[in-house]
Amino acid sequence: MDNQTPDPVFRALADSTRRAILERLGRGDASVTDLAAPFAMALPSFLKHIRLLEETGLIRSRKAGRTRTCTLQRAPLAMIDDWLARQRSQWEQHADRLEQFVIGKSQEGWPE
Amino acid sequence: MDNQTPDPVFRALADSTRRAILERLGRGDASVTDLAAPFAMALPSFLKHIRLLEETGLIRSRKAGRTRTCTLQRAPLAMIDDWLARQRSQWEQHADRLEQFVIGKSQEGWPE
Repeated sequence: MDNQTPDPVFRALADSTRRAILERLGRGDASVTDLAAPFAMALPSFLKHIRLLEETGLIRSRKAGRTRTCTLQRAPLAMIDDWLARQRSQWEQHADRLEQFVIGKSQEGWPE
Repeated sequence: MDNQTPDPVFRALADSTRRAILERLGRGDASVTDLAAPFAMALPSFLKHIRLLEETGLIRSRKAGRTRTCTLQRAPLAMIDDWLARQRSQWEQHADRLEQFVIGKSQEGWPE
C-alpha cells in the first residue's frame, strides 16, 4: 500500500452510506441484499457505492449463485489510521515543546 | 462537534496539498506565505485550499498587519479518529468471536 495515495480512501469515507456499509461489514461479511436493506435507496444507486468501495480496496466481493457477499478489507483503513496517528504524535511533541518553553519562561520570571 | 457530519472533514483530507498544510501546522503555527512556499502553485489556488480547511474547521487564521497566520484545530481530526477507533474496536471484537468459534469447532473435532 506504501506507494498508494490515501486520496480515494478519504473520498470514499466522505459519505454516510459508505461509512454505514463499512460499519456493518466490521461485524462480519454480508450480502449486497442485506447491506442494501436499511437504506431507502434505489438498488442501482446503492450498487454505485458498493462499486466505489470495491475500487478503493475497502471491500471485496465474491459471487456464489445469485448472492454477492462483501468482506471488509482493513489495509486502506490502516493507511489513513497511520496518517492520523502520525499527526497526533507530531502535535503531541509540539505541545510538549510548547509546555517546556512556557515552564522555562515562567521559571526565568521568578525572583532569585 | 457531535451533531456535525464528518463528510466535509474526510473530503478536506482527500487532497495531498491540504494534508501537507495540516502536517506543517502540526509542528506549529505558520503564515500563509510560509505555508505556500513549498508548493509550485499559484497563490489563488493555494488560498482556495486554505479557505476550504478553514470552512471545515481544520484550521483557524488571524490577520496581523499584512500577515495571515494559521493554527491547526484538533477537533475535526479527533472526530474522524474516533470513527476509525470505533471501527477498529468493532473489527477486533469480531475477529475475537471468529477465533473463539474456530477454536470451539476444532475442539469439537478432537476425539475423546
